[in-house]
Amino acid sequence: MTRQEIFQQIQQKASFLCVGLDTDIQKIPQHLLKAADPIFEFNKQIIDATADVAVAYKPNIAFYESLGAKGWESLHKTLEYIPKNIFTVADAKRGDIGNTSALYARAFFDTMDFNSITVAPYMGVDSVSPFLEFEGKWVILLALTSNQGSQDFQTLTASDGRPYFHHVLEKSQTWGTPDNLMYVVGATRGEKIAEVRSLAPEHFFLVPGVGAQGGSLEDVAKFGMNEQCGLLVNSSRGIIYADSSENFAKTARMEAQKLQEEMKKLLDHYL
Amino acid sequence: MTRQEIFQQIQQKASFLCVGLDTDIQKIPQHLLKAADPIFEFNKQIIDATADVAVAYKPNIAFYESLGAKGWESLHKTLEYIPKNIFTVADAKRGDIGNTSALYARAFFDTMDFNSITVAPYMGVDSVSPFLEFEGKWVILLALTSNQGSQDFQTLTASDGRPYFHHVLEKSQTWGTPDNLMYVVGATRGEKIAEVRSLAPEHFFLVPGVGAQGGSLEDVAKFGMNEQCGLLVNSSRGIIYADSSENFAKTARMEAQKLQEEMKKLLDHYL
Repeated sequence: MTRQEIFQQIQQKASFLCVGLDTDIQKIPQHLLKAADPIFEFNKQIIDATADVAVAYKPNIAFYESLGAKGWESLHKTLEYIPKNIFTVADAKRGDIGNTSALYARAFFDTMDFNSITVAPYMGVDSVSPFLEFEGKWVILLALTSNQGSQDFQTLTASDGRPYFHHVLEKSQTWGTPDNLMYVVGATRGEKIAEVRSLAPEHFFLVPGVGAQGGSLEDVAKFGMNEQCGLLVNSSRGIIYADSSENFAKTARMEAQKLQEEMKKLLDHYL
Repeated sequence: MTRQEIFQQIQQKASFLCVGLDTDIQKIPQHLLKAADPIFEFNKQIIDATADVAVAYKPNIAFYESLGAKGWESLHKTLEYIPKNIFTVADAKRGDIGNTSALYARAFFDTMDFNSITVAPYMGVDSVSPFLEFEGKWVILLALTSNQGSQDFQTLTASDGRPYFHHVLEKSQTWGTPDNLMYVVGATRGEKIAEVRSLAPEHFFLVPGVGAQGGSLEDVAKFGMNEQCGLLVNSSRGIIYADSSENFAKTARMEAQKLQEEMKKLLDHYL
């Protein structure tokens, strides 16, 4: 999927919402446990309920992997069920030496047909490049995350006085372009998003941490939006677990729509 | 498995060899493709042929994941087949926010029964700690790798004049101990191994990059060995793909034994 296609979808739906499919067998509504594949059944109903307001779906791979071969099958089915015009993110945070990253790329881009994958930068160029070689596919590189541990290494000051994540942003732009490389940018503080935006003006950011993890959507838009929106804002728990009754899909839709309406206002204001 | 148990095995076998199970359907001997599960059949024969000279097996998870649900099953069967007194490493390089890392820990330590997993440090404490909470299990944290991209960020100089990987070594020792935390340390240069050893005197190192990836076993022992050996040296391709004929297991054994004999000499010399 091209950058232009992502932007078109954002305009059509007046939304930059990514729905995180962190589907946990212990958290889904009881009545679904009777289904042949409860995880897929849950995802299917969430997708049906939100596909007109979401521009991206992001299955968190750990949730599927923790169920072994069965989880892997639920993931495959989920991915096949997502409408082809909606952007898909494998939130896998992979990264290994070249020939191993190439295998992960094959797994997520060929065996499955994800549009993008989140990648960790620590092992450098040959851990990232194999993912960039796939035409029409995207790397979403960890730059600045919003979890507690992000303060341990990401913000460490380098000898040139700049934090480490600046170097990740700068160096990685010699590997990929705004047409095949996005960044994960945490949403806890607006000024941090502005800082990343100044270093990567054209790139799309995948922003977790709005909603349950704190972080204001208004700040994200104010400090992070560029001419093509440049934002995919994720919400997982706030949407998919808003209601644990048989009405879960309806409630999920309401929550997604609330975010979409707020996003519409922000798009109208800033674009 | 405890540190003492690992050391006892090293002494008993006079070996610190880890065999990497980077099992690729495109590289295994043709005649195995007739088997119901060629990947498992290959691993089974490699394990049978090397179990008395190897102290650890390290399946590279990407190779299994790239085959989807079927690969996942081959991995399960392989892990169950490895004798319980041999240390097992899930070479997965995971690392995510706390609740997601907890799920990966569940996948590799509970759903499967790996003794250890390789973890990437970029997201900091809450991405690593969930793995450390499992009694008797190990984190093997990426410190200094030997691939080309290791020069991009790992060796970047911080404001205190020390390279970034020093900070990873130092900070992570406030999270784990030599009894549940090892480090991945690349083997391309002996003096680098000495540098890491000075910062982590008691910890075990998992050393890839001996053999096919270059790096001398003698240097690794000279600069990296501690009182409990403190080394698990991995060889993958040099052993498992030494021979593509029907004799592959026999040749793999010969190659593994060659390394073990060299290791015995080094253990006799340095311990």
